[in-house]
Formats: sequence, C-alpha cells, structure tokens
Amino acid sequence: RLCLCSVVHFIRDGRRRSGARKVIHSIKVGIALILVSLIYLIDPLYKQFGENAMWAVMTIVVIFDFFAGATLSKGINRGIGTILGGLLGCLVSIVGQRVDGVGKSVVVCISILIFSAAATYSRSIPRFKKKYDYGAMIFILTFSLVVVSDLREEHVIDLARERLVTVGIGFAVCIFTSLFIFPIWASDELHDSVTSKFEDVASSLEGCLEEYFSTGGHDKKKGSNGCNKCKTVLNSKTKDEMLANFARWEPCHGKFGFSYPWNRYLQIGENLRDLAATVTSLRNCLQSHRQPPKESREPIREPSLAVMATLVWTLRELRGSVRKMRRFQAEVEVLPKLMAVRVELTLFNTQTTLGRPLEKD
Amino acid sequence: RLCLCSVVHFIRDGRRRSGARKVIHSIKVGIALILVSLIYLIDPLYKQFGENAMWAVMTIVVIFDFFAGATLSKGINRGIGTILGGLLGCLVSIVGQRVDGVGKSVVVCISILIFSAAATYSRSIPRFKKKYDYGAMIFILTFSLVVVSDLREEHVIDLARERLVTVGIGFAVCIFTSLFIFPIWASDELHDSVTSKFEDVASSLEGCLEEYFSTGGHDKKKGSNGCNKCKTVLNSKTKDEMLANFARWEPCHGKFGFSYPWNRYLQIGENLRDLAATVTSLRNCLQSHRQPPKESREPIREPSLAVMATLVWTLRELRGSVRKMRRFQAEVEVLPKLMAVRVELTLFNTQTTLGRPLEKD
Repeated sequence: RLCLCSVVHFIRDGRRRSGARKVIHSIKVGIALILVSLIYLIDPLYKQFGENAMWAVMTIVVIFDFFAGATLSKGINRGIGTILGGLLGCLVSIVGQRVDGVGKSVVVCISILIFSAAATYSRSIPRFKKKYDYGAMIFILTFSLVVVSDLREEHVIDLARERLVTVGIGFAVCIFTSLFIFPIWASDELHDSVTSKFEDVASSLEGCLEEYFSTGGHDKKKGSNGCNKCKTVLNSKTKDEMLANFARWEPCHGKFGFSYPWNRYLQIGENLRDLAATVTSLRNCLQSHRQPPKESREPIREPSLAVMATLVWTLRELRGSVRKMRRFQAEVEVLPKLMAVRVELTLFNTQTTLGRPLEKD
Repeated sequence: RLCLCSVVHFIRDGRRRSGARKVIHSIKVGIALILVSLIYLIDPLYKQFGENAMWAVMTIVVIFDFFAGATLSKGINRGIGTILGGLLGCLVSIVGQRVDGVGKSVVVCISILIFSAAATYSRSIPRFKKKYDYGAMIFILTFSLVVVSDLREEHVIDLARERLVTVGIGFAVCIFTSLFIFPIWASDELHDSVTSKFEDVASSLEGCLEEYFSTGGHDKKKGSNGCNKCKTVLNSKTKDEMLANFARWEPCHGKFGFSYPWNRYLQIGENLRDLAATVTSLRNCLQSHRQPPKESREPIREPSLAVMATLVWTLRELRGSVRKMRRFQAEVEVLPKLMAVRVELTLFNTQTTLGRPLEKD
C-alpha cells in the first residue's frame, strides 16, 4: 500500500511538474522575444540592421521548441540551410549576370524549379526527413529569396549577409534562453518515459490478473485503466524516436555524458512494447466468455498470483535499475527467483496438464 | 498462388506509385515557386508589392505540404493566425501611441511577453496543438512583428495590409497547385493504409502458422517478414491520426463525400492493432522453446491450418469490402463460416483437453 501511495504521489507530482514546465517554456519564449526586440528598441542596433531585424524575431518564433535538443536541432538546421541556400543563390546570381534581359529570368526560373524540386524530393526520403527536414525547407526558402531578390536589388550580397547575421542573433538568443534558463531536456523526458513504461506494463499485468481472480465487481475500473496504460505503451514508438532524435543533439548535462547510448532506450522500449502486446492479448484472453466461472478459478488462483507477483517485482526492479542508472545484477537478484517460478509452473502444469494437449496422442 | 502474385504486384505497383507521387509533389512545389516569382518578374506587380513579395515566396515554402489536406490546414491556420496577430498587434499599437517615450517600449515588451507566452502555452495543450499549432505560431510571429515594427515604422497598417495580401497570393497559388494539379489526397492514403492493414495482419497470421507447421527451414524468412508487418500495424496509430486530421480538411472528392466518417477508419485501425497485438503474442508463443518438437505437431496441423485459413479469408473479405466501400453482409457471408469453425474447435478441444486444465478438479 505504501508502494502504491508513492506511485500515485509520483504521478500527481509528475503532472504538476509537467504543467509547471509548460508555463516555464511559455515564459522563456516571451523573454527571448523581448531580448530580440531590443534590436528595434536600441538605436545603434536598429541603424545597423533596419528591417532585417525581423529575421531575428522570425528565427525565435520558428526554432524555439519545448525541448532544448529540438531547439538546437532546428537552429543548426536553419543555420546550415540558410548558408547553403544563400551560397547557391549567389552562385546562380553570378551566372545570371552574364545573361541579359529575358535570359536572366529564364535562368532564375529554371534554377528555382530544379533546386526546389530536388530539395523537396529529399524531404520525402524518410531517413533524411527525420534529421534534416527543416534544414531542407530553409534551404529552399533562402535560395528562392536570394535568387528572386537578385532580379530587383543591386546589393543582394549585403542583404544575404545581414539576414544571416540577424538569423545568427536570433539563434544565439534562443540557445541562451533554451539552454541556460531552466532547460527542459528531451533526454530527461526520454529517460522518464522509458522507466514509466516498466511501471505501466507491471501495473497493467497486476490489474488484469487481480480482476480475473476478484470476487466482487469493484476492480473493473482499475482493469480498464490498466488496459489504457498498455495501449499507451504500445503507441509510444513515435514519441520515443522523436525524443531520442532530440536527445542526440543535446550537450552533456547531468547524468547524460558524451555519446550516451540513446539507442538502448529505443531497444528497451521495443521490448516493452512486445511485452505490452502480450499483456494485452492475455487480458483479451482472460476476458473471453469461454473462461470458466469465477468459482472454479480458485484452484489456480494462488500459483497464478505468485507468478504474477514475481513478474511484477522483476519489472519494478528493472525500472529502479534503469531509473537510478545502476548496473543490474540479473544473476544475483532476479534470475534465481524467475527460475524458481518456472520450476513451480512446470510442476503445476504437469499436475493439471495445462498447455500439454499432446500428452494423449 | 494467383492471389499471392496479385498481392506482390499490388505492393510493387504501390511502391512505384509512391515514388511517382514524390516526384510529382516536388515538381509542383517548383511550379508554385515559379508562379509567385512572377511578382518579381512582372513590373506592375513588383511596383505594387515591392519587398513584401517575399511573403508570398515564404508562404509557399512553408505551407506547401505533401497532402492537399495538410496544405489546406496549414494555409487556413496561417491565414487566421496572421489576421488575429495583425489585429491584436494594431490594437496594442493604438494603445501604445497614447504613451510617450520609454512608456511605449514598456507597453510593447509587456504585451509581447503576455501574448506570446499565452499563445505558446496554448500550443502545449494536446487537443489545441493537434489542429491549430501552426496557426498559434504564426499568430506569435505576426503579432511580434507588427508590434515591434510599430516602434520604427510610421505606416504599420499599410505594411500589415500588404503582407496580408501577399500571404493571400501565396496561399492562392498553393491551393491552386496543390488541389488542381495531380492532387495527392490524405484521404486516399488513409483509406489505403487501413485496407492494407487487413492484409498485413492476415499474411502475418498465415506466415506464423505456416512456419510453425513447416517441415523445412526455408519459411523462416517469410515468418520474420510477417512479424515486421505486424509491428508496422502496431505502430501505425500516429500516422493514421495525422492522416485523418488532414483528411478532415479536404473538400469532397472522388468517393469521399461531405462529412465523411473519418473516425470510423481510426476505430477500424484500433481494432486491427488489437488483433496485431494478439498475432504478435501468438507468434512469440509459437516460437517458444517449450513448444513440442516438429513431429508431434502433426495431429493438430490440419485443424489449425483450417481455422487459420478461415480467419485469413475473413480478414481478406473485410479488406475487400472496406476497399470497395460496399456494405458487408456479415450474417450471410462470414458469420456461418466462423460459427462452424468455432464448433469444430470446441469439439477438438474436448477431445484433446486443450485449454481445459480445470477438468480434473
């Protein structure tokens, strides 16, 4: 009961913390925007950049994300996209200057068609899209703007340089606010998400067996709650992959060092999803109409609950080990218990012929 | 065999079609960009909009998405965000004009902090985020730009109006290219994705039982292929929800009428994921080391394969019915067969005591 209480407390605490984090993030965005507005407010700065200061505001709004890693990844993508697009745009402009009149327009149109189509195509390749989607978009944007502006403006190089500088200012402000004021790390979120999956699967397993052997009907609600938890685990792949993708961009911090094995989290998640699939179908099986009536379940009650308790205990031990990042002594701590349960189960099976339909042939 | 051939052909055809669609999308983006570049190329247009023409280019790059529904949803979000942000920005400017000197800057900073933080917070509410995330971002962007520009420019209303017009031009070009030149509908994709899930689960079930009863080892590869298919189905929730979200924005077209029940696809997907979870754990169970040796599986081979064949046939019938959008006569077509299989299975169970461990007590 003490354990359950602490779990409930942990979840409630987690919810409050998640709400607080949202508020902190919102205020951080506001602060970052005020910081770049200083370009407009301080005369010498405005004289230098003029209208181009708008690019700093735009950079903040577009790249400031909830997680520090996401902000960094978008920021670096935006930087690289802007530089590549700008350089290629200048190159096309130089080529265009050798052609006169309508020829120049034709060069511009053809180059826009070719490069934007190529970059758009690259955005539809899953592996590229996962990491560089935003960079490719900014590449198309910068390239098109530089090339078409060149048709009208004389000093396109200056324009490109000033925009790059203001994008850089926006990026710097973003990184400062995101990384140094109450940073919200995708790494922490991934770590918590994976550890809580252990608990979700464990409590779901617990709930479904307790419901099966309960005599009253009052555990029904808890059971369906466990079912939802299992569904959450089953559907967590996309979120985990996204978080791991962001976590890779984040600098060393707290307990996460350099070249931290983020892939391991994804592997653990994959295994837990397999387990959740098994628990889901166990639940479906136990809820089937073909199950024997409540009274005749009594003989298998005790051994089943004992097996369940060991499995749940194992999952919680594993969760503790992942959460505290300490090596798990499987041989010492868990394997003997699991072996004992297995032997017990085999004995029980032989006695009752459970799962041995071929004995008779 | 003929059926398998047509499935393989269908998949290959699908892949080629998906590649072609990517190329078409890329070229469409190029064409849309050339169309808005005309603002720079044609003198009267450029005289009217000048530098603001850049907002049309930006709109194209940012809102043109693979699916028509996504483009529409982003475009409408951008429009509403721009209008709301612009209006609120003008309102704050009017208030600001009554204050002099430093007071004005303070009003601007406080208004940026409050409104951007509020809009950012709303972006972290899942239900709002799902539909209006992009609109909220554009709201922050427009609001900030209007408010800070007001510190420096005299004719901020003109600026806002011209930008709105160019965003409108960009939007119109996007919609034209996206909806009228080889449109790529999210609705079609969702429809295909759900129907192909039936086939994935069916072939996975087939593969896992065929592998179990196979005498040689050559079916191993097919089995693991089926396992991947099941995983794909299990992890399809996010993609399906995204497609349904886009599909809701798409106008009537082809077989999809007004207020088409997109939620049904999500429900079917949910059920198929449950089924895929069961197939996955059946597979895990059949691959267990505790299974009897290959030779002693022979007695249950025939009835098991017969049950499997009926289930697979049912799934394929359902797929055909969903694909062709015709009412499924469950009572006539499938239920009798399933009932017969159930009776057969019960009989077989009684003979072999499979799954009746409590008989002895």
